[in-house]
Amino acid sequence: MLELRLVQGSLLKKVLEAIKELVTDANFDCSGTGFSLQAMDSSHVALVALLLRSEGFEHYRCDRNLSMGMNLGNMAKMLRCAGNDDIITIKADDGSDTVTFMFESPNQDKIADFEMKLMDIDSEHLGIPDSEYQAIVRMPSSEFSSICKDLSSIGDTVIISVTKEGVKFSTAGDIGTANIVCRQNNTVDKPEQSTIIEMQEPVSLTFALRYMNSFTKASPLSDQVTISLSSELPVVVEYKIGEMGYIRFYLAPKIEEDEEMKA
Amino acid sequence: MLELRLVQGSLLKKVLEAIKELVTDANFDCSGTGFSLQAMDSSHVALVALLLRSEGFEHYRCDRNLSMGMNLGNMAKMLRCAGNDDIITIKADDGSDTVTFMFESPNQDKIADFEMKLMDIDSEHLGIPDSEYQAIVRMPSSEFSSICKDLSSIGDTVIISVTKEGVKFSTAGDIGTANIVCRQNNTVDKPEQSTIIEMQEPVSLTFALRYMNSFTKASPLSDQVTISLSSELPVVVEYKIGEMGYIRFYLAPKIEEDEEMKA
Amino acid sequence: MLELRLVQGSLLKKVLEAIKELVTDANFDCSGTGFSLQAMDSSHVALVALLLRSEGFEHYRCDRNLSMGMNLGNMAKMLRCAGNDDIITIKADDGSDTVTFMFESPNQDKIADFEMKLMDIDSEHLGIPDSEYQAIVRMPSSEFSSICKDLSSIGDTVIISVTKEGVKFSTAGDIGTANIVCRQNNTVDKPEQSTIIEMQEPVSLTFALRYMNSFTKASPLSDQVTISLSSELPVVVEYKIGEMGYIRFYLAPKIEEDEEMKA
Repeated sequence: MLELRLVQGSLLKKVLEAIKELVTDANFDCSGTGFSLQAMDSSHVALVALLLRSEGFEHYRCDRNLSMGMNLGNMAKMLRCAGNDDIITIKADDGSDTVTFMFESPNQDKIADFEMKLMDIDSEHLGIPDSEYQAIVRMPSSEFSSICKDLSSIGDTVIISVTKEGVKFSTAGDIGTANIVCRQNNTVDKPEQSTIIEMQEPVSLTFALRYMNSFTKASPLSDQVTISLSSELPVVVEYKIGEMGYIRFYLAPKIEEDEEMKA
Repeated sequence: MLELRLVQGSLLKKVLEAIKELVTDANFDCSGTGFSLQAMDSSHVALVALLLRSEGFEHYRCDRNLSMGMNLGNMAKMLRCAGNDDIITIKADDGSDTVTFMFESPNQDKIADFEMKLMDIDSEHLGIPDSEYQAIVRMPSSEFSSICKDLSSIGDTVIISVTKEGVKFSTAGDIGTANIVCRQNNTVDKPEQSTIIEMQEPVSLTFALRYMNSFTKASPLSDQVTISLSSELPVVVEYKIGEMGYIRFYLAPKIEEDEEMKA
Repeated sequence: MLELRLVQGSLLKKVLEAIKELVTDANFDCSGTGFSLQAMDSSHVALVALLLRSEGFEHYRCDRNLSMGMNLGNMAKMLRCAGNDDIITIKADDGSDTVTFMFESPNQDKIADFEMKLMDIDSEHLGIPDSEYQAIVRMPSSEFSSICKDLSSIGDTVIISVTKEGVKFSTAGDIGTANIVCRQNNTVDKPEQSTIIEMQEPVSLTFALRYMNSFTKASPLSDQVTISLSSELPVVVEYKIGEMGYIRFYLAPKIEEDEEMKA
């Protein structure tokens, strides 16, 4: 039997809005350590990894490891029916082919049960090794989101270049070119607005803006986003989920443009 | 001659927005007692009854009973041109085939006259007998509206079941099932947020969500909605219009699902 | 070399939003006196004239007169990437076939360069003589905008009639007719809400609402709009751009309806 009670139910609503565009169907894995998901996007280019640690739930009961296949569009439809202040409980009986989402309004006047059919989904869990990155940029998630959106009106790819001074986002398209530079800025009094760059060596990589724009749907989860870059590795775009976990998006750089950039 | 002056013109704007989706053309009946309308929706399934009592108007002159056929879409187009704080006056000369809506801005700097052609509409006025209902639920109109909208993302029909403890709204569809329970809650300090159930005997009836969602377009008119239910009668969904009247929607229950529910 | 630095960059963003619907491609002319544009709309019915005087820029360098052909849709796309508080600098090298828009965030943490290709556009500059007008109406731009929008839901043309008492906007269509009268109103304490009529003689002219609605896209630039009318001249609809310039729209009256009106 599974019963996970999340007082701040809006987090789960935001998680679904963040990933439902990228991933259609996925297995949610439940174990003693937490509630997690790992899935490729439908074109098998990007990878999403979600973790909600058990300590973050008000009540966390998971008698044995369980993998529940869900259609994320349907799950998002149901979670959209939860109020932003509602407490959400995820329930499943052992061996059942359904999962139940329970929404309780803060004053307990309104209680909703949404029962969803589970699916069988083939998936292999990839081991993602911890890596050293050449550069790690932490910046306001809203700024990263608006930069990706702005550049999309000009081109299809973004070149992210990191130096000690700042991070530059560039694109080019039929109507012209664009460069946006964000300077390192360790604003002490408003840490959520700071831009902090940890750099081992300068790096410059090219990515498809379409995926970056998808990743930024997670912005409501966190004031800050962390972008980890290395020449030989997929970029990691990470949004923390309060103290309880994260969503990480992985995307391989485009090789050709990368070469051009180094010139 | 007819001249009806409504200081709170926004009420008339909201009335039109509430019924124009359901009813295309209808006769507005004007008599000494008030301004009223009774009409079936275009598929002849639901009935709308509107009453604005003469006492609610700042000035009410109706020399003889008059029935004015109007296209509600066109009337809504004109009323949308009135400001929310405008005073609205409805004018018609005896025997004229037009009606005039006059909008005065609060400071009288802007005065607009919109003249609309009337139509001949065949209609029979149904006598609606006062009935005893097995259960009457009064609840926040915004909550009823969001419940109907939420359930529509899962299924096509709603089963409304009333017991002493509360009212349950249920649906089922391809992706799963949903149950939303609202408990009786007589919040004394905020009466507009209370949910009050007057029950003679438990009742459980099934309705098409499509119509329920149409009815909730009247929510801006009133903080509370009253839902009156009996096994053998159409449900009545009523929104008060200030002190001056009401909109009532009538809809017959679906028979088959009703039978299933009693099990 | 050209370098124009505009601290209140949002003005340029609003200018583009105001004219990009009406004009597809146009030459921006830069001289010692200012940055200007004159263009016909694509159906050659309406004329737009823009002036931003050099004194309005924080820094204004224009070594020699320059005419830069731009696609306004693409230019608007780039300017939409500037924040509302950003400082915008327009830069061009002599003989270059590109123009650069630089956006600096208020705290200088984010700097963007957008480079756009220029186009060759044939255009003849019309001399617009200063004229005497029979009537000049100054009124809140938001009110003029909502009147044009409201009348569009009834008819295709607007008859603007000015008398000493006020200005009347009229239309007629299949569903009926509409007249909106705005009275002269010299509100002393809130000049931006005043309606002021300077009249030599009464005038009544007919215009296509489609163009009037396009002109009102400039409303965010100014609280007030000035409408100058004469029987034999195109109407001038003018929006001031702070202290530094204006957008003026010119539109010839429709002749037939004008004749009818005089009856």
